[in-house]
Amino acid sequence: MSSKARPGWARRLGSVHEHCLSQDLSALVVSNPVNVKYLTGFDGSAGLLVCTPDVVRLVTDGRYDAAVRGLVAAGEMAAVDVERVALRYDLTLTEVLQQMALQRVGFEAGHVTVATLESWRRGQSSIDWVATDGVVERQRVIKDDHEIDVLRRAGRALAGVARRLREWVRAGRTEHEIARDIDDGIEQAGFSHVAFPTIVASGPNSAHPHARPSDRRLQQGDLVVLDFGGVLDGYCVDLTRMAGIGHVGSEAMLLVRAVQAAQREAIATVRPGQLGADVDKAARLVLEAAGLGPAFLHGTGHGLGLEVHEAPRVSRSATASSDTLQPGMVCTIEPGAYVEGLGGVRVEDDVLVTASGCEVLTEAPRDLLVV
Amino acid sequence: MSSKARPGWARRLGSVHEHCLSQDLSALVVSNPVNVKYLTGFDGSAGLLVCTPDVVRLVTDGRYDAAVRGLVAAGEMAAVDVERVALRYDLTLTEVLQQMALQRVGFEAGHVTVATLESWRRGQSSIDWVATDGVVERQRVIKDDHEIDVLRRAGRALAGVARRLREWVRAGRTEHEIARDIDDGIEQAGFSHVAFPTIVASGPNSAHPHARPSDRRLQQGDLVVLDFGGVLDGYCVDLTRMAGIGHVGSEAMLLVRAVQAAQREAIATVRPGQLGADVDKAARLVLEAAGLGPAFLHGTGHGLGLEVHEAPRVSRSATASSDTLQPGMVCTIEPGAYVEGLGGVRVEDDVLVTASGCEVLTEAPRDLLVV
Repeated sequence: MSSKARPGWARRLGSVHEHCLSQDLSALVVSNPVNVKYLTGFDGSAGLLVCTPDVVRLVTDGRYDAAVRGLVAAGEMAAVDVERVALRYDLTLTEVLQQMALQRVGFEAGHVTVATLESWRRGQSSIDWVATDGVVERQRVIKDDHEIDVLRRAGRALAGVARRLREWVRAGRTEHEIARDIDDGIEQAGFSHVAFPTIVASGPNSAHPHARPSDRRLQQGDLVVLDFGGVLDGYCVDLTRMAGIGHVGSEAMLLVRAVQAAQREAIATVRPGQLGADVDKAARLVLEAAGLGPAFLHGTGHGLGLEVHEAPRVSRSATASSDTLQPGMVCTIEPGAYVEGLGGVRVEDDVLVTASGCEVLTEAPRDLLVV
Repeated sequence: MSSKARPGWARRLGSVHEHCLSQDLSALVVSNPVNVKYLTGFDGSAGLLVCTPDVVRLVTDGRYDAAVRGLVAAGEMAAVDVERVALRYDLTLTEVLQQMALQRVGFEAGHVTVATLESWRRGQSSIDWVATDGVVERQRVIKDDHEIDVLRRAGRALAGVARRLREWVRAGRTEHEIARDIDDGIEQAGFSHVAFPTIVASGPNSAHPHARPSDRRLQQGDLVVLDFGGVLDGYCVDLTRMAGIGHVGSEAMLLVRAVQAAQREAIATVRPGQLGADVDKAARLVLEAAGLGPAFLHGTGHGLGLEVHEAPRVSRSATASSDTLQPGMVCTIEPGAYVEGLGGVRVEDDVLVTASGCEVLTEAPRDLLVV
């Protein structure tokens, strides 16, 4: 079964080893837990990975080391040596580096804090610490076959939840009640948990992009933003649909149509070589033409994977080479418009960049759900 | 209503201002989102606080700025000036610092990454950045009256969930099913969400301190670890109880009794002036006397508050002055023993350090729940 295939840890670690060789590093210390999980399958809350071209050592504590040895033996994690922390992670790490006689050691500058680096320096003064930038993240941004398989399944499952919104959304119910039903639906669809707190924002609350569900009851004329996501086999997907309660006014409908058009235009712009900023601009131009430029309060999207927000960026600031779309990238496309006194609209899908354009992973009707 | 009293933001910010004055800092940049929330009530996913002795400025983006202005106007957040990010947080931050003509600026070395500090340095080369260590965390570790009130209510509510375990735990049900019921119970008890993924670990799974719920069905003779927590008004509480399915063997019962005794001894040791390491030692001595020293795979506890793991530490490594117990600290007391082939036991309560000892916040029967 393709769905049971194991992630390609050896290949992923191989890329790290190549980076070490090319940069003349004797090792890379991976401390970002998401990167540790990506490279090894280790899913604990604390662990440090020391990757050399010859060996991969996982420094973890007594809560995890027995379980990790079992998972490694069973082939359910990458083949790592386990080093158990006796007292403090920084002490054990620097001991391990000393034992291995490592000299030039890379660290993840985007994850290691100034205080942590200082404690590592104090622990072993002979090491030359080298800041590295996104060594593992650059791999993660291009999903491999295993990841694409998981994300496709997750996208289909989340679209299935979206198709059930009609069961839950109706006048008189509170935002909280509907959010609870969506959360149950996410679990029933096979997700291990929600990817972020579900948003149900109705009427005036919809004008705030990140409103939390309240005890407000849906009433006639409301626009309702329904934004939710789930985590399947470790991977996050994220979707937003709109509902309208009874008769929605004509100004609100203009908002809905403009955002729908902006999303279509953005999706049509997704293909290899485009910058995230180009995709953002496509959505923004549509909204600006509708007089809604200032109402578009956030970026058009963000990458998805082990994290619900990761590279590439799909926003005005997405001008780096890592924001250039390539086949295998997965991101959200979610323009929105928010007008105080009128309400807010957002429509969001997840797309996989393909050789010629993109594949929508969350195919479900995008029309305003009128209930 | 005391439960509706607002947090003392002005007093909390006042402490930061005093720190700036005493350290000759023209400002402190607070970037840890939990600290931003503690100081201002801001609850978004992105925001930077610039605190000077005269003004507090919150740098945030278009998703939040309108909502924040509303909350500030309504007195539901601290009185902050809002600066909206146009493109990138680092650019706006350094612009703000320049406008304010700040020279010696503190940053949170335990939160700011090496890469972020580098980007701030590039943005404004004339600023003298000063590493600070735990300025806000040192305040947070001593809970104020508002926080104690919330944590007492949360502890009582979580103890209420523990009293319902008998409704859910029985032979033939899966760990997943029981975890789901506990999660529903946590929500029904008034918590906004769970504090961490609920642990239900039965039979052989109980031997792993951080097992995740599986589809394993509870069976005769199982020990079952039930570890769960909730977040109420932003504050986390955390509790573990044990169940036994039918007749539990005599060796397993020795494990249960030893851990119960270790927990009693640790709780009896909690009082102002004790180090976290002393409390840990009290539990550890009891387990060592029972031959279970090597089976105690983690520390005795951890602080609780806006985060589910925060200072003080209550473990062997808890020897710093910040780990010295003082009235107003809140922590878990949760010794455990884990033996492959036999199973694992953990019992956990949350305590508030008082002038003379401690108050247990999660009072509910600690005996093995036999079902």
